[in-house]
Amino acid sequence: MPGIMLSNHFQNGIETAKLVWSRLPSSDDVETEEELERRMNGGGGAESLDYEVIENYAYREAQAKRSKLFNWYYAMLKWLIALLIGVGTALAAVFINLAVENFSGWKYAVTFSIIQHSYFLGFVVYAIFNLALVLTSVFTVTQFAPAAAGSGIPEIKGYLNGVDTHGILLFRTLIGKIFGSIGSVGGGLALGKEGPLVHTGACIASLLGQGGSTKYHFSSSWLRPFESDRERRDLVTCGCAAGVAAAFRAPVGGVLFALEEVTSWWRSQLMWRVFFTSAIVAVVVRTAMAWCKSGKCGHFGSGGFIIWDISGGQEDYSFKELLPMAIIGIIGGLFGALFNQLTLYITSWRRNYLHKKGNRVKIIEVLLISLMTSVISFGLPLLRKCSPCPNSEANPDIDCPRPPGTDGNFVNFFCSTDKEYNDLATIFFNTQDDAIRNLFSAKTFHEYSAQSLLTFLVMFYSLAVVTFGTAVPAGQFVPGIMIGSTYGRLVGIFVVKYYMKLNVDEGTYALLGAASFLGGSMRMTVSLCVIMVEITNNLKLLPLIMLVLLISKAVGDFFNEGLYEEQARLRGIPLLESRPKQFMRNMIAQEACKNQQVISFPRIVKVSEILYVLRSNKHNGFPVVGHGRNGEELVIGLMLRSHLLVLLHSKRDFQSSPFPCDPRGVTSRHIWSDFVKPISSKGMTIDDIHLTEDEKEMYLDLAPFLNPCPYVVPEDMSLAKVYNLFRQLGLRHIFVVPRPSRVIGLITRKDLLFEENDNPAAMELQTTSVRAPGPDRRSVGPQEHIDHPLLDSLLIQR
Amino acid sequence: MPGIMLSNHFQNGIETAKLVWSRLPSSDDVETEEELERRMNGGGGAESLDYEVIENYAYREAQAKRSKLFNWYYAMLKWLIALLIGVGTALAAVFINLAVENFSGWKYAVTFSIIQHSYFLGFVVYAIFNLALVLTSVFTVTQFAPAAAGSGIPEIKGYLNGVDTHGILLFRTLIGKIFGSIGSVGGGLALGKEGPLVHTGACIASLLGQGGSTKYHFSSSWLRPFESDRERRDLVTCGCAAGVAAAFRAPVGGVLFALEEVTSWWRSQLMWRVFFTSAIVAVVVRTAMAWCKSGKCGHFGSGGFIIWDISGGQEDYSFKELLPMAIIGIIGGLFGALFNQLTLYITSWRRNYLHKKGNRVKIIEVLLISLMTSVISFGLPLLRKCSPCPNSEANPDIDCPRPPGTDGNFVNFFCSTDKEYNDLATIFFNTQDDAIRNLFSAKTFHEYSAQSLLTFLVMFYSLAVVTFGTAVPAGQFVPGIMIGSTYGRLVGIFVVKYYMKLNVDEGTYALLGAASFLGGSMRMTVSLCVIMVEITNNLKLLPLIMLVLLISKAVGDFFNEGLYEEQARLRGIPLLESRPKQFMRNMIAQEACKNQQVISFPRIVKVSEILYVLRSNKHNGFPVVGHGRNGEELVIGLMLRSHLLVLLHSKRDFQSSPFPCDPRGVTSRHIWSDFVKPISSKGMTIDDIHLTEDEKEMYLDLAPFLNPCPYVVPEDMSLAKVYNLFRQLGLRHIFVVPRPSRVIGLITRKDLLFEENDNPAAMELQTTSVRAPGPDRRSVGPQEHIDHPLLDSLLIQR
Repeated sequence: MPGIMLSNHFQNGIETAKLVWSRLPSSDDVETEEELERRMNGGGGAESLDYEVIENYAYREAQAKRSKLFNWYYAMLKWLIALLIGVGTALAAVFINLAVENFSGWKYAVTFSIIQHSYFLGFVVYAIFNLALVLTSVFTVTQFAPAAAGSGIPEIKGYLNGVDTHGILLFRTLIGKIFGSIGSVGGGLALGKEGPLVHTGACIASLLGQGGSTKYHFSSSWLRPFESDRERRDLVTCGCAAGVAAAFRAPVGGVLFALEEVTSWWRSQLMWRVFFTSAIVAVVVRTAMAWCKSGKCGHFGSGGFIIWDISGGQEDYSFKELLPMAIIGIIGGLFGALFNQLTLYITSWRRNYLHKKGNRVKIIEVLLISLMTSVISFGLPLLRKCSPCPNSEANPDIDCPRPPGTDGNFVNFFCSTDKEYNDLATIFFNTQDDAIRNLFSAKTFHEYSAQSLLTFLVMFYSLAVVTFGTAVPAGQFVPGIMIGSTYGRLVGIFVVKYYMKLNVDEGTYALLGAASFLGGSMRMTVSLCVIMVEITNNLKLLPLIMLVLLISKAVGDFFNEGLYEEQARLRGIPLLESRPKQFMRNMIAQEACKNQQVISFPRIVKVSEILYVLRSNKHNGFPVVGHGRNGEELVIGLMLRSHLLVLLHSKRDFQSSPFPCDPRGVTSRHIWSDFVKPISSKGMTIDDIHLTEDEKEMYLDLAPFLNPCPYVVPEDMSLAKVYNLFRQLGLRHIFVVPRPSRVIGLITRKDLLFEENDNPAAMELQTTSVRAPGPDRRSVGPQEHIDHPLLDSLLIQR
Repeated sequence: MPGIMLSNHFQNGIETAKLVWSRLPSSDDVETEEELERRMNGGGGAESLDYEVIENYAYREAQAKRSKLFNWYYAMLKWLIALLIGVGTALAAVFINLAVENFSGWKYAVTFSIIQHSYFLGFVVYAIFNLALVLTSVFTVTQFAPAAAGSGIPEIKGYLNGVDTHGILLFRTLIGKIFGSIGSVGGGLALGKEGPLVHTGACIASLLGQGGSTKYHFSSSWLRPFESDRERRDLVTCGCAAGVAAAFRAPVGGVLFALEEVTSWWRSQLMWRVFFTSAIVAVVVRTAMAWCKSGKCGHFGSGGFIIWDISGGQEDYSFKELLPMAIIGIIGGLFGALFNQLTLYITSWRRNYLHKKGNRVKIIEVLLISLMTSVISFGLPLLRKCSPCPNSEANPDIDCPRPPGTDGNFVNFFCSTDKEYNDLATIFFNTQDDAIRNLFSAKTFHEYSAQSLLTFLVMFYSLAVVTFGTAVPAGQFVPGIMIGSTYGRLVGIFVVKYYMKLNVDEGTYALLGAASFLGGSMRMTVSLCVIMVEITNNLKLLPLIMLVLLISKAVGDFFNEGLYEEQARLRGIPLLESRPKQFMRNMIAQEACKNQQVISFPRIVKVSEILYVLRSNKHNGFPVVGHGRNGEELVIGLMLRSHLLVLLHSKRDFQSSPFPCDPRGVTSRHIWSDFVKPISSKGMTIDDIHLTEDEKEMYLDLAPFLNPCPYVVPEDMSLAKVYNLFRQLGLRHIFVVPRPSRVIGLITRKDLLFEENDNPAAMELQTTSVRAPGPDRRSVGPQEHIDHPLLDSLLIQR
C-alpha cells in the first residue's frame, strides 16, 4: 500500500487555529512518552508509524529478540537500583543517626559536667551549642537547598500524584536534607528526622535512577530505561519506603507507608520491589548497629534508632480498660486536628508575611525558636521540685539517680540531695528518643507526676506548633509521639489510680497515646499501626493500637484533613484525590472545558506557525488534525509542547517541502532520550529557541512524534467518569470529542483474554456463546485485512 | 426546550441489525448499574434523562437534601455491616476451631486409651473416627453445597476480578463450608481450615450485604445501597480480610492479604473499613479465647487458633547463617513450584475424568484418601524405633514422655519403656496445629531425627498433593507450613551440626522453611510475611522471613504461576492480570473485536424484535443508536441484556406508540432494585419471558434505561492501552468507535481540580497560564448555554 496513495488532501498552509486548551506547564504525558519511547527503541506496532517495518517480518523478529535481551537487562537493572536505593538510604539514615547522637550526647555530657559547678554557665553552653547546630541547619537550607525545608512528604506525595514541585529531587536538596536534619535534630528543636529521611530516600532513588546529578555531570546513558515518568515514580516510591524502613527500622511499615500514604498509583509488581528495598534497608541498618555495639560509634550505642522495646510492659488488657483507651483515642483526634489547624494557620501566615522578607528573617526566626526551646527545656526543670528516688530494694532494676553522662530515667537535675530525681528534666532535658523511651518505660509507676506531664505537654505542644514550617528539615513523627505519649501516660496515671488491682502499665498507655496523636494528625491507618508495632516490638498490643487509631482518625476527620493533605494544599500542590467529588456526577465533560480555547495543529506545519502558537499561550498539549482517506477531518493525535520544543531546538526534522516525511529517518535522527525532560532542571522554554528566518519558513511533519491515540471521552460523559479515567490511569490529557456515530465493536473481558490453555474442560465456566472462527489472535503479524485501515489511509501517503 | 422539537427522524421499525459482539453471559456492568441507580434514586444530572428535573431548581434542592440524609444512613450502614462481618466471621472461626479441636481431642484421647491395650483396635477406632468425620464433610459438600469444595480463594479472587462463579456466595455454600471444614480438618486429612475460612468470611459478608439469603426469605429492603456490584465487591473484600484475620489471628495480615492477593481494584477508603473489620475480628476472637481459658470449651484450651509463639527461640543471626537460609529459600521455591505443578495435573485429571462420574465416585475417593491418611499416620510411627527421652535434669522444662491425652512434644507411642518417645508420632499422630507447634518449638535440639523428618516430608507432601482437589473444603496454608517446617527443621539440624558454636535454633529454621514453602507455592510477599510474623509473634525474624520469601518467590516464578492463579485458570476463571501482555502493544482495538457481529438497537424498538435479538445470540450488551438534531446517526448508549429482560418481564414500560416515552413515568414505575441481579440466583433468562402476541406488537423506549456514556476507544488505539482502561476501571464493555473528527476540548489536571481555597498565595506553584474568567465551576445548576447540547437534541423530543 505504501506509495500508492499520493493523497490529494495535503495542507500546504496552516489551518486556522482551532480552539484548544491545555495547561499544566511543567507536566509531561506518560502515554505520549511511552509511545515515543517504543517508537525510538524500534518496537514497531500496528499503531506505530514505521510503516515499512509492519510489512517486514524478519525485521520484527529481530526487534523482538533485541527487545527480549533489553527486557532482561532492564529487569536486572531495576533490581540492582532497588538494592542500591536500600543500601544508600540505610547508610544515610545511619549517618544522620550517628551524627545526631554524637552531637547531642556530647552536648548533654558537657552541659552535665558544667552544671555540677554552675547552672547558669551550663545553660549558656547548652544554648550556644543548640544555636550553633541550628544555625548550620538553617544556613544550609536557606543558602544552598531551599527545597530541603520542612518534612518533604507533602512534596513527594505531590510528585507521585503527578505534580512536579521544582527542586525537590535535586542532589543539593539531598545534601541539604541530610546535613540540615543533623543540625536541627541535634540542636534540640521540637522536630524529628523521620519525614526528612523519607525525602532523603526519595532523592537517593531519583538520583540513582538518573545515574547521579545532571548538574554535576554524573549522568549515565546505561540508565536510559528509567527516563520515563512512570519509572521515576516507581523508584521514588521505593525510596519513600526505604526512608520509613530506615527511620523506624520498620520494613513492613515502610512498604505500607509507601502504599497507603504516598503513592497514587500502585501496581502489585511494584510492591514486590518495594518490599525488597525495605528488606535491604533492614539488613544494612542491623549490620551497622551491630558494628556500633562494639563501641566504635561514640555516643551512638544506646540511643539512635528508635526502637522502644516495651516487651516488659503490660501484655493483657481487660474490658474495663477499653474506656480509658477510647478516651485516649478521642483526645488524640482532638489534639491532632487542632495541631493540623494551628500549623496550617501559622504556616500560611509565615508564607504570606514572614518568609517573603528574605532569608535573613528565616534565619533569625529559627534562631529565636532555638533559644526559646533552650530556655524552656533548661529552665522549666529548674522550677520543678525534685522527687525522692523510689525504694531501691523494692525495685532493684532501677538506677536512681542515673549516673551523669548516661542515658536512662531518673535524671538528677537541680536537686538538693543525691537520692532525688527531677521528673521534668527526665523528659525535657534529654534527646527526644531518650525522652520517649523514658515515657514508654514499663514498671516505673509514679515516676512522673501529673503536674510535670501536663507542663511538658503544654510547652512541647506549643513548641512543636511554632517550630513547624520554619526553614529547617523537620519531621512530625517524633514530636507527635512525644506529645501523644505524654497525655497517654497522664491517662495511664489516672487508670492506675482508679483501677488499682489490674495489671496496668503507664508505659502502655503512653504508647497508645502516641498512636492516637499520630492517627489524629496524619490520619494514616494500617501503615501507622504496623510502624507502631514494629518500633515497640510488641505484637500483643496490635488490637489496642488499631482501636485507638480508628477512634482518633474518625474524630480528626470530623474536623479537617490530614496533616500532609493540608500542607500540600497550602503549598499549592493540587493533589487529585482518588475519588471524584460528589458534584462531578452532575456535570459533563464539556462543562469542565467550556471556556477553553482549543488550539490544534495540522499534521504538516510551518515552523513560524509553531513558534507563534507556542508563544501565544501556555498550553502543554495540542491536538493534531489531519485528513482521512476520503478527505474528512480526523484527529490524528496529541503533540506535547515539550516535544515540540525539542524538535525546534534540534532543527534536524525541518524540511522544505510541505509533504509527509519518511518516518524511517526519524529513528536515525533521534534517540528516545532526546525527548526526556531531565529530572533536575526546568526543561526548555520557548525563549531557548533561536531560529533564522530561513528556518522559520520550513515545515515540520508532526506525525512521527505525536501520541496517535490519547484517551478520548464523549462530550456529554459524566465528569465523575472522566475523573475516574483520568485519575486511575494517571493521565495528563484527555480529548473531549463529539459523540460517536457508530460502534465498530464491543470489547469485553473475553476479548482481552488470550488463553494459552485451549483445554476444553477449562472452558466449562466460560462463555457458551458461539464465536466465529478466526485467525489466532495472538499473532502479532501484520493485520492487512482490517475493515477500516484508518491509520494506513491517514499516514501511508507516499 | 421540551416539546419544541417533535423530531422527524423517528424510526418506526427496527433498523437492520448492525454488528455487535458482547459476551460474558453472567456479568453486569457496574457503570450502567450506577447510572440506573442514580436515576432511580432521583439524583438528576446533566447527563440524566429526567429532563424536566433539570429545569427545576427546587426539585434538585430537595433531592440534594434527601441525598445528604441518605449518604449519612449509607455511611452508618457500611460501618455497621463491617462490624457484623467481623463479628460473624470471628464467631464462625471460633465455632470451627472449637468443633475441630474437640473432635480431634476426643479422637486422640480415645485412641490413646485404647492403644494401652491393643494397637490394632486403636487403629480401627482411629480410622473409623476419621472416616466418619470425613464422610460427613464430603457428603455435605457433594449433596448440599458443591461450591464449598476446595479452598475457595481462587473463586473469590475471580469474583473480585469480575468473574461470577455460580454459587460461591450462597447461604448453603457457607453452611457447607463451615461443617465441611470441621469434618475434613477434624478427620485428619492433609489440609487446613484457613482457605475455607476466607471463603466463609466472604460468604458472610455477601449475605450480610443483601440482608440474608434470598432463597430463605431474609432479604431486606433497607440494605438497598449494597445492591450494586461495586458495593458487593467491597463487602467481600472485607470478608476475606476478616477470614484471614480470624484464621491466623493476624489482623494486619488479613488486611494485606485482601489487598495483595485477593482484590483487583483497591480503594484507600476501603482499606480503612477492611482494617476496622480485622480489628473487630481480633477483639472477638481474643474474647472467645479468654472465655475458653476457664475450661468451658473441652479440648479447645491448648490448641486451636494457630499462634505458634516462638519467642523462646533464636533472636539473633550471624552472616554465616544467611547461606543455609538462602538454601531454604531455594528449596521452598522448588518444592512450591513442584507442588503447584503436581496439583495442577492431578486436579485437571480429576476434573476431566474422575469427577465426571458423579458424586459417588467423589465420596469414595475422599474416603479412600482418608483411610490412606489414617494408615500412614498410624502405621509409620509403629515402624519407627523410639528414642530415649532427653536428660530431664539438663532440661527441667521438658515433660518427656508427655502424659497421655495432653498436647505437647515427646509422644510415647509403641515404645518399649516409659522413658522413651516416638519422634515420628510426635508430628504424625497429632493434629496439624500441634505438629507445627512441635516443629517450631525452640530449645528442643535433636528431638527429631533426620530420618523421621525425611519420612514425614515425603509422605505428607504426597498426601497433601493427593488430597488437594477432592470434594471437601481444603486450605493449603497449614499443609504448606507443615511441609515447609519439616525441611526447614531438617536444614536446621545440619546447621546445628556444622555451625556448632552459634546460637542456632532448629525451630527458627522450621519457621523459615514454612515461609519459604508458602512463598514458593502461593507467591505472596508482604501479606505472607506479616502473617508469618503475626502467627509466630516474633518481629525479630522479619528480615530473615523477607529474605527467604524473596528467594523462594523468585525461584518459584521461574517455573510457573502461583497456586491460586493456576487453580483459577484450571477452573475456567479468566483472571484479568493487572498489566497487559507484551504482544498487546502490537495490536489495536479493532483487532480484538475483528470477528464480532455487532448487533445494535434503535432507541424505540418493537418488543418482538427485542425477543428475536435476545434469542438469536448470547451477547450481554447492545449499543443503542439514535439520531442527533440534524438527523445524523449517533450512539446514544449501552443497553444490558439483563436490564432488557427485566423490562420484558415487568411489561410496565410497553407502549403502543413508537414515540419517546415520558421519563418521569419511569421512576414511578420502577425502583432501582428491580434491575439488580440477586447475588444468589442465576438471574432471569430469555426463557422466563412469556408474552402475548399483543404485547409483542408493542414498543419499548430504551432511553431511560441505557447507560448513556459507556467508555469509548478509537478503533486504532493500542490494545495495551485499551486493556489498561478496561482493567483499571473494572469495566465490562468498551465501545470501539471511529476516530473522532474534531476535539471539543482538552481535559487536564487543572480542569478537574475545583479548589475551595482561592488564596492567591496558595496558587504560587500552580499554573501561570491565563484562564478565561467563567462562571463558578462548582455550580451544579442547569447549564443551558453549552455549545453543543447534544443530549438535549437527542432526547428532548416531545
